[in-house]
Formats: sequence, C-alpha cells, structure tokens
Amino acid sequence: MSKPLKIAIQGVPACFHDVAARKYFSASTVSPIECSSFRILCDTLADGRADFAIMAIENTIAGSILPNYALLEKYDFKIVGEVYLRIEMCLLALPNQSIEDIRFVQSHPMAILQCQEFLSQLSDIKVIEASDTAESAMEIAQNGLKQFAAIASKLAGETYQLNVLQENIETDPSNYTRFLVLCRSADYRQEPNSNKTSIRFETGHTPGCLALILAVFSANKLNLSKIQSIPVVGKPYQYAFHVDLEWSDHADYTQAIDEMKAYALNIVQFGEYQRGDRRMIVR
Amino acid sequence: MSKPLKIAIQGVPACFHDVAARKYFSASTVSPIECSSFRILCDTLADGRADFAIMAIENTIAGSILPNYALLEKYDFKIVGEVYLRIEMCLLALPNQSIEDIRFVQSHPMAILQCQEFLSQLSDIKVIEASDTAESAMEIAQNGLKQFAAIASKLAGETYQLNVLQENIETDPSNYTRFLVLCRSADYRQEPNSNKTSIRFETGHTPGCLALILAVFSANKLNLSKIQSIPVVGKPYQYAFHVDLEWSDHADYTQAIDEMKAYALNIVQFGEYQRGDRRMIVR
Repeated sequence: MSKPLKIAIQGVPACFHDVAARKYFSASTVSPIECSSFRILCDTLADGRADFAIMAIENTIAGSILPNYALLEKYDFKIVGEVYLRIEMCLLALPNQSIEDIRFVQSHPMAILQCQEFLSQLSDIKVIEASDTAESAMEIAQNGLKQFAAIASKLAGETYQLNVLQENIETDPSNYTRFLVLCRSADYRQEPNSNKTSIRFETGHTPGCLALILAVFSANKLNLSKIQSIPVVGKPYQYAFHVDLEWSDHADYTQAIDEMKAYALNIVQFGEYQRGDRRMIVR
Repeated sequence: MSKPLKIAIQGVPACFHDVAARKYFSASTVSPIECSSFRILCDTLADGRADFAIMAIENTIAGSILPNYALLEKYDFKIVGEVYLRIEMCLLALPNQSIEDIRFVQSHPMAILQCQEFLSQLSDIKVIEASDTAESAMEIAQNGLKQFAAIASKLAGETYQLNVLQENIETDPSNYTRFLVLCRSADYRQEPNSNKTSIRFETGHTPGCLALILAVFSANKLNLSKIQSIPVVGKPYQYAFHVDLEWSDHADYTQAIDEMKAYALNIVQFGEYQRGDRRMIVR
C-alpha cells in the first residue's frame, strides 16, 4: 500500500475542506492535517508538513475569498487542481434538544451567511462565529452544550453524534464552494492534461486595455470562466484582474499569454490544472 | 428649515452606514431610520418609510457583497449616488477594562474579517457575530458587559461612552467600504451631472461575447471601473457580469448600451449617478 498523502485542510475532521480533499484524492489515501486558519494552512504547506493543501477560493453567495488570492501570491504556491462541492448545511444539536430549545447557533461566518434566511426565521437566538463548521459541531458534542446548535455538514453530525434538527438550511440550493488544490512552487510539475488556469494581471492607465486582453483570449479560443477586478492598493484608478481561462489546446494558452504582454503588467500565473466537474452542483 | 430626509441605514446610530449617510447628505438634514438587516432596509425604502437607503455594496477585503446586488434587482431600486468610506476600526470596551480582561469580541462579520490579523494575536478570546458594529458597542455599554469588547468606529465609542483599547486594528490601512445611495424606481429622476452607472448583463454561449462588449465600451470612451462575473444559477457555464462604467459624455453611454445589445442578454441598468470621491481612501 502506498504512503498516504498529507493534505492540509482548514478545519477539523468532517469539515467541508476534509470532504473536498476526499473527493479530489482517493479517500483512502488522504491523511488530513488540521489547520485552524488559512494562514496556518499556508505555513503547513510551505514548511513541508503537508504534500498538498486544500483552500476554499469562492462560493456562490459571497463570491471570491479575496484574502486567499493574496495568500496564494505571498506564499508562491501553484494550483494543481480544483474541486466544486455543493454545500448542504444542517442544523445540528445534542440528541435531546428540539429546535425550540436552541438559543445559540454557531458556525463559520461563511456558513452563517449562507443560511441567513433560515436564521432570520428563528426568534431570540444569538449567532456565534466559529473558525470552522465541523469544529462548532464537535464543541457542542464534547462539552454537552444544551441550547446550542451548529451549522455544519451531515457528515459532521454523524462524526460527532449530533442530531440533525433541520436539513438543507442553505438559502441557495445551488450553493457551492470551489476549492483549490495547492502545492509548493518547487514541487510543481506541469499537468499534461491541464485545460484551465488562474492568472492575475494589472492594466495601466491606457483605456481599453482589458477589452484588448479579452480579445486576445477570444482570438486564441480561450474560454473565460471567471473575471474579477480588484483595486490596486495605493494606486487609485488602477486595477488588478483575477481571471480563469480554459482551453482545448495548450498551445493556444501559451500564445495568448505571449500576446497579452503587450497590454498587461505584472502577470502572475498560478498554475495549470484540470477543470473540476461543476455539473453535480446544479439541481 | 427644510424637512429632514428619512434615510434608511443598516444599523444603529454611529454605525458605518450612519457615517456614510452623513457624509453623502448634509449631516443636519439626515434623519436616520435604523434597520436590522439589508432585507428590512429594502422593505423600509420600498414601502415609503424612508426617502433613500444607504447600502454597503463592496469593500477592499471581501470584495462585492453579492446578495445586495440580488436585493437591488428584486426590489427594483435605482442608484442615485455612491460614497467611499475609509473604515477605521477600534477595539472598544467599558472604561474599567484593559485588553487583558477581554474574553469576548463582538462585531459585524465583515468587521471581524477586516481585523483578523489583530484578532489572531489575542489569545483565549471568543469572537461573536453581531448584526452591526455600533450595536455591538451599544450592547456592551447598556448591559455593562465586562470581559467584552466591540469592534466599531471611534464615533461609536464616543456615542456609547466606551474606551478605545486600540485604534486602527484593521488589517489593511487602505481598507474602504463603498456604499450605494438608493431610491425607489418610481422616484428616480435622471441626474443631469451623472458620470457613472452600474449595470448587469448576461452573455450567451457564443465565445468572445465579453471581449466584444468591452470593446464597445472602449470604442465609446467608457471607463470600466469594476467587473465581476457570477455564474447564473441553474444555467451551467453561463455567466452574468456586474460592471461599473464611467463617462465624460452621457451620449457615449447611451450609444454603448445600444451597441452592446448585439452581444448581451438581460441588461439591467441600476441607475446613473455621480462618481464618489475615492482619493481620501488611499493613504
């Protein structure tokens, strides 16, 4: 049997990062390394305690997790893959608790945001932010916290033996989170079957640069699957763009990068990888 | 003296929405109407209890607040203006408390996100989500909560007589929030000095549509100050785009809208307004 892969995840067992890791790699080969923040996750990968890291990068409700793009750049990691996960949230509590008993609901801020419609129907509850969905469930189980409920995965309910008070409490049934699979730049090997990349670039003051760059992508038959502008800190009216591109022929991509240099500044290529399957996330 | 304007804000007095309202309108003419959620804010404007509403739409750290775009569309409001506010966060507590006494820190989830580096340096604290920055300060003052601190504006400290334990605890000193000033569509009058708009549109399956649309903007001398793609729920591989455009000549804008119809579907125009001043937000 081969040695299990050490995968840094943000959270404790049964968190959504754990679920994503088991979906991307074969579940039996994954040895998860729990990290309590994205920064610690990056440190864990950077100093070699993990072979790969799984990092949430965007979701349907909140959009991109911009600080994670900043981490990606700062730590010089490469993207080797991506996982789309449809996020189904449950309200979990101790076995003897009913929904009327609940006074405190705790979870990760993003999960709270994704369940806001459901939470607004509960009267007289206090919402508590936790660092992780599964951890908030674990804490209720370990400390026997009455009046508390967690928002977490069904798997977290099974893992920590909590009751599901209500299933699918997420506002948007097509709600998904996209996770990136990361490695250290030094370990990065070009994936021969890659058909997608994530890049970042800036445009100068010249108007129309972005239109010209997108025309380069289009002329080279690249499909743009994401674009987001962010203001460049300290440079008013200058913008950086995070763009995801997909291709059928890798040569088209290298050609486009070459041509776009006429219009773009500070191009950062975050790695080439195989497109994840998004079909399962649409009901 | 003229009748004060009823402005719906999300939060209690001294929240950042209140600060933004007082910055946009003359402070003396503002009669704020407190709303405890963005949904209630929209209801308050829709049913005529407010003349205008102030709504946060994006910030430097978290990017766009996508659910608020959805509300804008659902309620059929128009944008009449925008305000950029540099967000300076303070840690506030009862006068007799030192930073070592603090065990609980409460604030709005976005404020918590913006102060994550500072919070990670505090050991053994629990972070509690509240619906509003200023309200979390008010609650500490009104209930005499020892061991509690709030993350809120300096103004909230003054308003609720709390001590500033630490100033400028935000991670990013160029941290700003952009607020939209909204009115009901029926009350919308075209602003003669408008030079900016926010629109939303979809592109079909034809590749290169977005490049063609941006070329239309560029050919008509429109400056693109924001672009963000979002997947269209239920339509895999189709995208909607939120775009902000600026012009010197309004005729260029109407011409561009006319031309873009060849490539874009379901164009929504959220209103024309005067560009807010962003200079003050860059240090």
